[in-house]
Amino acid sequence: MNSIGRLFCLTTFGESHGDSIGGILDGCPAGLSLDFELIQSELNRRKPGQSTITTERKESDVVKFHSGIFEGKTTGASIGFSIVNSNQNSKDYSHLKDSYRPSHSDFTYSKKYGLRDYRGGGRSSARETANWVVAGAIAKQLLSQVKINAYVSSVGPVFIDKNYSELDFSKIENNTVRCPDEATAQKMIELIESIKSEGDTVGGVISCVVQNAGIGLGEPIFNKLHANLGHALLSINAVKGVEFGSGFCASEMRGSEHNDLFNTDGTTKTNRSGGIQGGISNGMDIYFRVAFKPASTIMQSQQSINNSGQEIALDAKGRHDPCVVPRAVPIIEAMTAMVLADFYLLNRTSIL
Amino acid sequence: MNSIGRLFCLTTFGESHGDSIGGILDGCPAGLSLDFELIQSELNRRKPGQSTITTERKESDVVKFHSGIFEGKTTGASIGFSIVNSNQNSKDYSHLKDSYRPSHSDFTYSKKYGLRDYRGGGRSSARETANWVVAGAIAKQLLSQVKINAYVSSVGPVFIDKNYSELDFSKIENNTVRCPDEATAQKMIELIESIKSEGDTVGGVISCVVQNAGIGLGEPIFNKLHANLGHALLSINAVKGVEFGSGFCASEMRGSEHNDLFNTDGTTKTNRSGGIQGGISNGMDIYFRVAFKPASTIMQSQQSINNSGQEIALDAKGRHDPCVVPRAVPIIEAMTAMVLADFYLLNRTSIL
Amino acid sequence: MNSIGRLFCLTTFGESHGDSIGGILDGCPAGLSLDFELIQSELNRRKPGQSTITTERKESDVVKFHSGIFEGKTTGASIGFSIVNSNQNSKDYSHLKDSYRPSHSDFTYSKKYGLRDYRGGGRSSARETANWVVAGAIAKQLLSQVKINAYVSSVGPVFIDKNYSELDFSKIENNTVRCPDEATAQKMIELIESIKSEGDTVGGVISCVVQNAGIGLGEPIFNKLHANLGHALLSINAVKGVEFGSGFCASEMRGSEHNDLFNTDGTTKTNRSGGIQGGISNGMDIYFRVAFKPASTIMQSQQSINNSGQEIALDAKGRHDPCVVPRAVPIIEAMTAMVLADFYLLNRTSIL
Amino acid sequence: MNSIGRLFCLTTFGESHGDSIGGILDGCPAGLSLDFELIQSELNRRKPGQSTITTERKESDVVKFHSGIFEGKTTGASIGFSIVNSNQNSKDYSHLKDSYRPSHSDFTYSKKYGLRDYRGGGRSSARETANWVVAGAIAKQLLSQVKINAYVSSVGPVFIDKNYSELDFSKIENNTVRCPDEATAQKMIELIESIKSEGDTVGGVISCVVQNAGIGLGEPIFNKLHANLGHALLSINAVKGVEFGSGFCASEMRGSEHNDLFNTDGTTKTNRSGGIQGGISNGMDIYFRVAFKPASTIMQSQQSINNSGQEIALDAKGRHDPCVVPRAVPIIEAMTAMVLADFYLLNRTSIL
Repeated sequence: MNSIGRLFCLTTFGESHGDSIGGILDGCPAGLSLDFELIQSELNRRKPGQSTITTERKESDVVKFHSGIFEGKTTGASIGFSIVNSNQNSKDYSHLKDSYRPSHSDFTYSKKYGLRDYRGGGRSSARETANWVVAGAIAKQLLSQVKINAYVSSVGPVFIDKNYSELDFSKIENNTVRCPDEATAQKMIELIESIKSEGDTVGGVISCVVQNAGIGLGEPIFNKLHANLGHALLSINAVKGVEFGSGFCASEMRGSEHNDLFNTDGTTKTNRSGGIQGGISNGMDIYFRVAFKPASTIMQSQQSINNSGQEIALDAKGRHDPCVVPRAVPIIEAMTAMVLADFYLLNRTSIL
Repeated sequence: MNSIGRLFCLTTFGESHGDSIGGILDGCPAGLSLDFELIQSELNRRKPGQSTITTERKESDVVKFHSGIFEGKTTGASIGFSIVNSNQNSKDYSHLKDSYRPSHSDFTYSKKYGLRDYRGGGRSSARETANWVVAGAIAKQLLSQVKINAYVSSVGPVFIDKNYSELDFSKIENNTVRCPDEATAQKMIELIESIKSEGDTVGGVISCVVQNAGIGLGEPIFNKLHANLGHALLSINAVKGVEFGSGFCASEMRGSEHNDLFNTDGTTKTNRSGGIQGGISNGMDIYFRVAFKPASTIMQSQQSINNSGQEIALDAKGRHDPCVVPRAVPIIEAMTAMVLADFYLLNRTSIL
Repeated sequence: MNSIGRLFCLTTFGESHGDSIGGILDGCPAGLSLDFELIQSELNRRKPGQSTITTERKESDVVKFHSGIFEGKTTGASIGFSIVNSNQNSKDYSHLKDSYRPSHSDFTYSKKYGLRDYRGGGRSSARETANWVVAGAIAKQLLSQVKINAYVSSVGPVFIDKNYSELDFSKIENNTVRCPDEATAQKMIELIESIKSEGDTVGGVISCVVQNAGIGLGEPIFNKLHANLGHALLSINAVKGVEFGSGFCASEMRGSEHNDLFNTDGTTKTNRSGGIQGGISNGMDIYFRVAFKPASTIMQSQQSINNSGQEIALDAKGRHDPCVVPRAVPIIEAMTAMVLADFYLLNRTSIL
Repeated sequence: MNSIGRLFCLTTFGESHGDSIGGILDGCPAGLSLDFELIQSELNRRKPGQSTITTERKESDVVKFHSGIFEGKTTGASIGFSIVNSNQNSKDYSHLKDSYRPSHSDFTYSKKYGLRDYRGGGRSSARETANWVVAGAIAKQLLSQVKINAYVSSVGPVFIDKNYSELDFSKIENNTVRCPDEATAQKMIELIESIKSEGDTVGGVISCVVQNAGIGLGEPIFNKLHANLGHALLSINAVKGVEFGSGFCASEMRGSEHNDLFNTDGTTKTNRSGGIQGGISNGMDIYFRVAFKPASTIMQSQQSINNSGQEIALDAKGRHDPCVVPRAVPIIEAMTAMVLADFYLLNRTSIL
């Protein structure tokens, strides 16, 4: 239940307010020289406190590896790692002991398990996603030839009005919202700052483009590439929808306009398939979009209930993200990399 | 790779033009009295040739059970079943031996596996979904108290302009397009017939509402209810996107409007969460939407290539669906039922 | 629960008295040209009625493949197959409806599942092993360079008093008991015939030698080669123990005599390790022994109980094996081949 | 590959000379009050340096829990834990960098993975088993009504000449060899001390008796109780064989003497089945024996080779166990407890 991947398999542990979080990455092939700075830089892209439009909470998020690596290379043994929770302050959450926050998991965890770690989100906290970024950064190194670029394509009603092919992915990290279109980025930042000042939150969409993944990734019938990507992406906190290639727009189209006709080299003239046909990558760019809801923790008083079914007024405390998508960009990339790494290994076994 | 589910687990086999397709359902608890007529009636909802807006191809689609059932009850043993392919005609497909049909899986299967069963879709054919309907019909019986209603909410640009709570699900089967809003249904049917007459196809959206599933289904972190539903739904042929509750619309909303406030009985005043919070069902209706692309096989001549990279003109033969969504309604329900059954069993182990 | 293998994965169904048994083999690489006569000949080695020392029950045991094979080659799709139960006669078993046969699974199945298919062994029947032989015969073809030879090394107190290296494996099939030492074989056959005439049964031991499996099969820590072999072998009906290499004798030895010293080419001077070190094959012969209990169905009246807890006298009917080991030889080989095939595929992913 | 268990699932990491070892226990039901002293006391039973007949190496082996436990109770979240390696001294092993120790995993790991953590056993070290003892101690608490008693039944040629029913399990911990028969225990200790003084090692057998496990544990066909126990037990370092109930002796018996006849209460007059029939527990004592080879590291000079294929003389250094079975007793119990816990949870899903 806390594992993802069939061969390249990550298992994780950790609550937002325990001493640490961490994971065990199983199935990474032996002989991979790891670039630890790259792993840490991916964590830094995700960590809180990196800009005015993210939470001001500070966490150093330094990963420590415990096993599976010898003299800088993977050994084929399971890779244990952990990240210390440096900034947890359990007192912040004592007021939540008996309360259910709206649209959080407090209610469902309490009902399912009969008890609940009420300090922050407990196990359901997005702090967990730091583990995924670690494993994803290793997956990226395993797939060194593959380019994975996620970016914020909309925040609330503000969106990039361009096809991804018109964007320069090298500009994604140029602004704090991680939108490669600078003019749109500024509007997004202004919107987030405005919403933050109101104590509110806002949703957004992240787009992701995978280039050079090659042909053959994906394992029908029940491990199709987009189905497993969908599973991984929907596991990310606050995600409410995913679409691949033409996505929901495809439902309005006709076959004669939707079909991707072939060039003689096997590439296609259009890419409405989003790089995946029959659940298998076809060598074109893999393209998908992920919808995030606005974060549930708002800096406004909300009506709610406690675990006795009594109405209460809930005042948020702490420091939270007014919009989660900027920090979710590296998470999307990490989940994508893990899924691709798994299929890359599986695909080694598909032909005699 | 051909299995789905952790405890309630279906493994399948079969190509569109083999002698039969079938599956093995593992993990169904012992003691379940099966209603075989209900299983067959579900298959009949999916089978080809049932109306003027589906393919005219006829298949009887009678399921035969081989094991795991004794004197009408499940025994706890694996349930083997098969469905004879009565109407396959491999000659229809000899012209496809060396051809790659646009937006089909011909190209990717050939490249991944080095060879391909070119008779129809082979393993990638939607014929496979008949297997899923069988297992789903058993899952529905295991979850007899749960009501799963899927329906066509849009075909091309024609959509139901109402919230699902305004619809009468008992009317879904009243028309051939499986849309509970009769006026919209007629427009959808007209559109499909018009598109069919042009030799073209059209996409659509299916909505699904699950009632009375109870609280506690779903297993964080990597087996969240919506993540596993997403995986199952994206496994269905022609699906390009899924969204849960508020879905993509959530990306445009603010937290203060998106949060579902509690009633004192633990229900919520709104249900933007779509019945799932933190990956676990919260007792509200589970609600999601699934986008289907237009079927790739069109009755028009298309330019394509063969496996030598030469341009060819491709003329479709056979009888195909102008719009897949009417027949996909029972498939959506089946996949949903299977995922819920799996979580229902898993949830029996969550508390001491 | 009815699946074995991580990549090369067999899922099965079937009871002794259903219409058929069968399975789905998933994960077999594409492009393997299958020799169907070889598959059938393996089934013939296992089938009942082949000699005077096995059950006289006749079953034709013809396997039919339904999918996953095209023009004689595997396609990468799941391989569905079935074997018709031609000789079941459910009337034979009506007297067992309420009875628990000693040392059978009647009692445990009834208690675990609340009901039981009382016709023969139901799901627990050794008829199931025919499925395994089919999958094993495919695994053998995948591992065409590997030689797997199992043979009967003891029946009751009669045993081969030689090291396996002194035996000529080409003689295994020369006699009905499948013992390559002809003099011992005759004693075994005489013993079985004598025991059969008394209406009794007898146990035995099968030894197995795998040659040319290569170095590197096995996946520590929890998928060690011998651990997974042990799991597969202990799944065979009537097996009570397994030992690898020096086995139980090792417990009486000293390290200085047990250690396998190296030759300079990496082979070892002795092979007490049985070809496996640290859970991974080392290139030496893989060697193990499997103990079978005497079959529980004897042609003598036995005291037993019914499901109301009343004492009953039980008289066996039907035709049964006086000694299971001769027919279990191909089953041992099949399970071994499946485990090795799985590790062969997994090992393709172990190095960058 | 580093995970064991389907629902109650342990995943581990760690090498003998890394900074720590640890694991993630997934699937433990919520609401279990943990006795941490009991967990530590199990670790103390396994730890080195506890007596004159074990290695003199000292490790404190204190387990630290990082997640999944709140206010003393399990929360349903994954339980992360680690144990610091306090006494590793990597310099001890520099002489092994290029050497292959006989009957160790040096050769196979090097060949399989292309490189090897040569500090001690690396991943293949029995230090890993400390992780298992932690998880097993939690499993024991989940199964509080089940009694699991393992004990040393033989060391080299010295064995207990009694049936387990004649033994008093409360005396197992009364001596350092963990043999409940005091006279035999003294002979075993003398033998081990004598062998230790010669710089040699010796093998042994551990017997295990599980009482009060109830009826219904085990999941045919490929997750039989004894098959999964066998898998778990064969995963333990130095194990060469397992047998259940009558074990290898069964191969010499006749059905008429081997069958366990029923009492009217469903218990059996004998227990040659070892508490398992058809792969499912029948309520009688579960009984099995596990054979250990002598440890490969001896304090004598041995001829060996290096990774260039040159002959070398190998002199052992460090402090090692002359006989591994005394410290393996809690490991056997831990693996048994984990397997039973897994089946206990699975069995909750077997009936409607």
